[in-house]
Order: sequence, then C-alpha cells, then structure tokens
Amino acid sequence: MKDFEFYNPTRIIFGQNSETNLLYEIRKYGKRILMVYGGGSIKKSGLYEVVSQQIREANALCFELAGVQPNPRLSLVRRGIEMARKNNVDFILAVGGGSVIDTAKAIAAGIVYDGDIADLLMTGGTVTKALPIGVVLTIPAAGSESSSGTVITDDEKTGLKRSFGGEALIPEFAIMNPLRTYSLPKYQTACGCSDIIAHLLERYFTTVTDVELTDRLIEGCIKTVLNNAPIALKKPMDYASRSEIMWTGTIAHNNLLNTGRVGDWASHNIEHELSGFNDVAHGAGLAIIFPAWMKFTHTRDMDRFVQLAVRVFDIDPTDKPKEQIIHELIETFENFLTSMGLPIRLREINIKEQDLPSLARKAMVGRTQVGQFVPLDEKQILEILTLAL
Amino acid sequence: MKDFEFYNPTRIIFGQNSETNLLYEIRKYGKRILMVYGGGSIKKSGLYEVVSQQIREANALCFELAGVQPNPRLSLVRRGIEMARKNNVDFILAVGGGSVIDTAKAIAAGIVYDGDIADLLMTGGTVTKALPIGVVLTIPAAGSESSSGTVITDDEKTGLKRSFGGEALIPEFAIMNPLRTYSLPKYQTACGCSDIIAHLLERYFTTVTDVELTDRLIEGCIKTVLNNAPIALKKPMDYASRSEIMWTGTIAHNNLLNTGRVGDWASHNIEHELSGFNDVAHGAGLAIIFPAWMKFTHTRDMDRFVQLAVRVFDIDPTDKPKEQIIHELIETFENFLTSMGLPIRLREINIKEQDLPSLARKAMVGRTQVGQFVPLDEKQILEILTLAL
Repeated sequence: MKDFEFYNPTRIIFGQNSETNLLYEIRKYGKRILMVYGGGSIKKSGLYEVVSQQIREANALCFELAGVQPNPRLSLVRRGIEMARKNNVDFILAVGGGSVIDTAKAIAAGIVYDGDIADLLMTGGTVTKALPIGVVLTIPAAGSESSSGTVITDDEKTGLKRSFGGEALIPEFAIMNPLRTYSLPKYQTACGCSDIIAHLLERYFTTVTDVELTDRLIEGCIKTVLNNAPIALKKPMDYASRSEIMWTGTIAHNNLLNTGRVGDWASHNIEHELSGFNDVAHGAGLAIIFPAWMKFTHTRDMDRFVQLAVRVFDIDPTDKPKEQIIHELIETFENFLTSMGLPIRLREINIKEQDLPSLARKAMVGRTQVGQFVPLDEKQILEILTLAL
Repeated sequence: MKDFEFYNPTRIIFGQNSETNLLYEIRKYGKRILMVYGGGSIKKSGLYEVVSQQIREANALCFELAGVQPNPRLSLVRRGIEMARKNNVDFILAVGGGSVIDTAKAIAAGIVYDGDIADLLMTGGTVTKALPIGVVLTIPAAGSESSSGTVITDDEKTGLKRSFGGEALIPEFAIMNPLRTYSLPKYQTACGCSDIIAHLLERYFTTVTDVELTDRLIEGCIKTVLNNAPIALKKPMDYASRSEIMWTGTIAHNNLLNTGRVGDWASHNIEHELSGFNDVAHGAGLAIIFPAWMKFTHTRDMDRFVQLAVRVFDIDPTDKPKEQIIHELIETFENFLTSMGLPIRLREINIKEQDLPSLARKAMVGRTQVGQFVPLDEKQILEILTLAL
C-alpha cells in the first residue's frame, strides 16, 4: 500500500425526499446562484421547478446557464464565467449529470482564475481556489458529484478533451434522488453503468501491491453494478436497483477506492478522443476501449485479471490456464456490455481503420505516456484501437 | 435502501511519512493546543517527541493532558475541560487510540457546552458545537479518528458507559502511520481487530432490505481483517497487514458502511457494561458478546447469516440446512477469535452467573430497547449473557 491522503467532504443527501434539503444547503453557500443545466429534460421532469422553488425559498437570486451538451464544451464554460462574473455570482449549482457538473466546476474555477481557462485545461493545472459548487444529480455515471476533477472538450482550438482538478472543485453537497433516474433512456442508463464500471476498473488495475482492502471494495462495487444494471434496464422504475447504481457511481469515483494505490486511466484517456471525435457517449466509448485494453495489457499481471475473473465475474478457474480464465473474463465482460445494448467495437460507432492513427496521436498530445498499469506510447495505443476495431 | 445523509470531512493522512504533515494541519487549526494522550507508550516509542517537534515547528503552544485509560473516564474529561478553558485552548490534538480520541472529543464538546458534561453524556445529546479536533492514531480499533461519536464511562456517579456525538466531533484530520502499530502488544492488536469486525457486523445486521452495495463493502472489510489479523499477530512488523487493518478500522466506522441501512449495536451496548464492570478490554468483551448475540438472534433473518457465512467465512453451503450453515459460521468466527488469543466466554474474564442480572439491568438504563435487528429487553439481554457464560 502506498502512502496517501484522502479527503472528501461532499455532503451526500440521498433518497426519495432529498430535494427538500436543497434550500438549507443553498442558504449555507449562496445568495447569487448560477444554475447550470443541460437541455429540456429537467423541465420536462419537473425537477427544474422543484429546484427553482427551493432557490426562491432560500431567498437567493438565480441566474441560469442552460444548454450543456454531452462532452461539455470550453466555449460554454467561457460564457458561464462571463455570466457569473457580470452578476457577482457566489455559488454554482449544477442540476444534471457529469457534463453539467463538469461545466459548473470549470466555471467555478475559471471565475477566480487569473489567466485563460483554456491554459488551465490544457496544462491540467491544480485548482486551489474556486467558487463553492452544489449538485442535484440526475444521471449516475461520471461520479463528478463528489470528485475533484472536471473533463472539458476544447471546442475552440485543439478539439482535445482534457481534465483538471483540485480539492477546491469537490462539490459542497450532492442531492441524489434515485427517482429522478427513472426517466433516463435505456441507452443512457447503460452508458452510465459502463462508465461506473470503468471508473472501478481503472482503479483496480494497479501495479501497487498489498492493496487487499481496496481490491475487495472495488470488487464489491463492480459486482453491485453487474447485478443491478440488468434490473434497472428491464424495470426502469425499480427503486432498489436505481439506488444501488446511483450510490455506487459516487463511491466509484470519490477517490476512496484508490487510496494507497495508483490507477491506470489509459482507457479513459484513449476514449476521450473518441467522444471528442464524433460525440460518442463516454460510457459507450469505454465499453469499446476497456475490453481491448484488457486484451492488450493482461500479461502485465495475469493474477490480478484472474482475481477479478473469479471474485467478480464468477468464472470457474478449476483446471484452466490463466490465459483461458482471462479470455473468459473479457468475453463475459463484453457479453455484459452487449446485453446492455452498448457497442463493443469501433465499427459499431462508425470509426474506421483509417481514423485510428489520428485518434492515437491525439491521445498522446501533451503526454509522454498514457496509463500506469502498462505505460503506453502512441504505437501501443494504436494497437489497442486496432484490437477494438 | 433508506434515505440517508453522509458527510465525513476528516482528512486522512496515511502512511510511513504521514507525521511530517502534522505541522501543516496544526497551522490550519490551532495556536494553543491541548494534547491528550495515555500512559507512557508514546514517550517510549518516540512519537511524543515527533509530535512535540511538529507542534513547535507550527509555532503553537502546547498544554498536555496525559493519563487517559482504556474505557476513558468522565473525571479526566472534566480535568481536560478545565485545563483547556483556563489556557484558552483553541484546538485539541489526540495522540493515541480510541480512548484518547474519545476523551479529546468529550473535552472539545465540553468546553463550549453550557451545562454539565455529565448531562450530555447521560442523555446522548447531539453536539452541534465543539473545538476542532485532530488525531495522531496509534491503535487501529475504535474508528474514532473519523467518527462523530465518543464513548465515556461515568466514573463519578452511575458507573455507566454511554456515548454522545454529532458532526462537530468529527476530527478535522487523522494522521495514520502503520509503523506506529508495530509495537502494539498481541492482545491489543487482537482486541483492535475484534472491535473492527464488530463495527462491521453491527452495521451488517440490519432489517433494511435492498442494501447490496453496503453489504458487499462490509463483507470486503471483514474479509480483509480475517485475512490480515493472523499475519499481523505472527509478524508484528509486517507493513502490509498492519496497513490493511489500520485503514479498514477507519472505513469500518466512518459511517460510509451504514449509508441507507440501520445498524444493530446491541452487542456494543451490552458489552459496554462489561468493560464498565471490571475494565475488560472492549474488543475482548465484543469477542464474547457477539457470538452469543448471533446465537440468540439468527432466526430473525437466517438468509443474512447464511450470506455472511458463504461470502465472508467461506462456509460451503452445499446440501446443508440454514441452521447448520449458521452454526458453522458462529463456530468459525469463535475459532478465529480464539486463534487471536481472545476470550469467547464470560467465565474467561471472571464474570459469573450471579453477575449477569446487574449487567443486563445496566445495559437497559435510560433505554427502552437495546438493538435494532432484534430489539432486546432486559430479559433477552440476560439470555444472551447466559449464552455467553
């Protein structure tokens, strides 16, 4: 186990009645609020009105930045910063999923950042100052509701998707009501589950030894998603599975599960260029990249793959060589992803062989390697992408 | 899953070099520090000097309250409150294990409490104001380093061991260096592991349904202690097992694992009267009470016991009736406790049949029931104590 520091002060308010607490939280943090959200879904669902009502009851003034898209854009972040500065906003409230929260975080950092927010994004600088952020979560997936990071696509110059973060970006609170996830389309539910599992796997594949506790915690989380995703997909209004998925999504990414270990994150970094490329949903991109990454890297530590296969994917190891067990693991994982309606090959999302070199190149921009479990160069990323074709 | 709120802002600084961070933490919180500790062990180990040096480097003034005993006393808490008030202390630093931390917490609450601290203790009131607390942990067991509660024995009037708590008592930081646990005597190591497992089991035994994620997280934690305790006992200077146990001890009790569920806590409440009775170590008392509690309550939800047996204690359930599986579970658990050198019967700690009625009565003082999984009255507590004879 490595030395570590763990700090996660987000107040999680979880459950069917969680939204009634919003006004008390708002009172603690803000008088002039920038509310960030996406398209019309929160208006259709009635959540917009619930939140607005709470803001009114808290006697706070509300400014609105709508229109956050999946794979959120730097240009909208800029508009938010401008709007927040002009109106002397003191608190940012994100109402939505990961893209909305990440936009809110980038705005919260950008408002107090001296330079150009694009520089912060492209250099991955550490944020030490930001406005306080609150979250009303509608999509369990990104885990951004209590994480310290934000992922933004530079739609102005480079087209690259990059991240930055820091303790100052950890939200003060997250209101999490599983009922709000009932209306998520199946594909989005599946993408969310794929993203959650990927967050867990990125942490699982470490070269740090003596990490039994966090191994077991990660395994429990993956197992929970594997068991509950099919139920939520079949019965979208099943409270139990929706709540298991929602809470797992937060724990998967609040940094508890990488205490004492070093995660990999190659699959995320490679995938980011897919979603940057043609607006592939992040969870779908991960469903394609992660199995290919496993195929490419598994010889680095076969025992770790076997442990995952046996403990989480219920592969019977009896009398099988490790290669066989790992093959079954990857196949089982791919079958699970397919059963959720997700693509597992690049061709399914219209990415062709001739697109791969530029994807590999973009994943390397500004980096000397990608991933930690097996540090990858451009050539190796291209091999993984080819395995994913 | 029940609605819940989760908030745990303790900054965990974990590892071999963690103590060098103490001065930065102290600088954030205090100029006039009350350092609370136990007997001479931190002087013998050199930790006292390390901490004092950090306090000096932080340019803070240090007052000292030494002499905290296991099952910490109200009278010492009073002395601490007096000393802290007289010296205008602004920060309490606990250097030790659960008893030291609990004393520090009670002092931190008492300083700003208007009434008599004994009232707060006996009514179990919620603390909303307290001085900030920091921890340098030396014994993994109580989990008090990031919990909101404190357990104190009233040595002045009632002789009862009672608890109170509140968010204001959650420590600001905990410095956790597994190397500091190398010198723990075997018995204390074993008692710590027993306490950690008990914290996990108290949460595990719930009547709330649809709690898969937290079930699995608790199971992973128990399994980790089961695997690592024997190693730490055999090789006291084994870093890996010491660190697994230390980090598990914190996670077992920081409230993450009871999100969405209701724990039982009967075994703790019954045990508290044992340690109040004749200074039995808390972990040893739990090793006696918990198996007896299991024997008495298992019919309430046999499936839950079977799940624990199969997933954590590796009991093979094939072709066995549930009663048999549960019998094997309890036997395996008792064998584990015995293998650590702990008592599993009251007679081993010189408690006799004639002592039981008063123990049962004391556990009920000020309470209408004990426990949640099966709400117990005095008669039932007596039955459990009799099973533990």
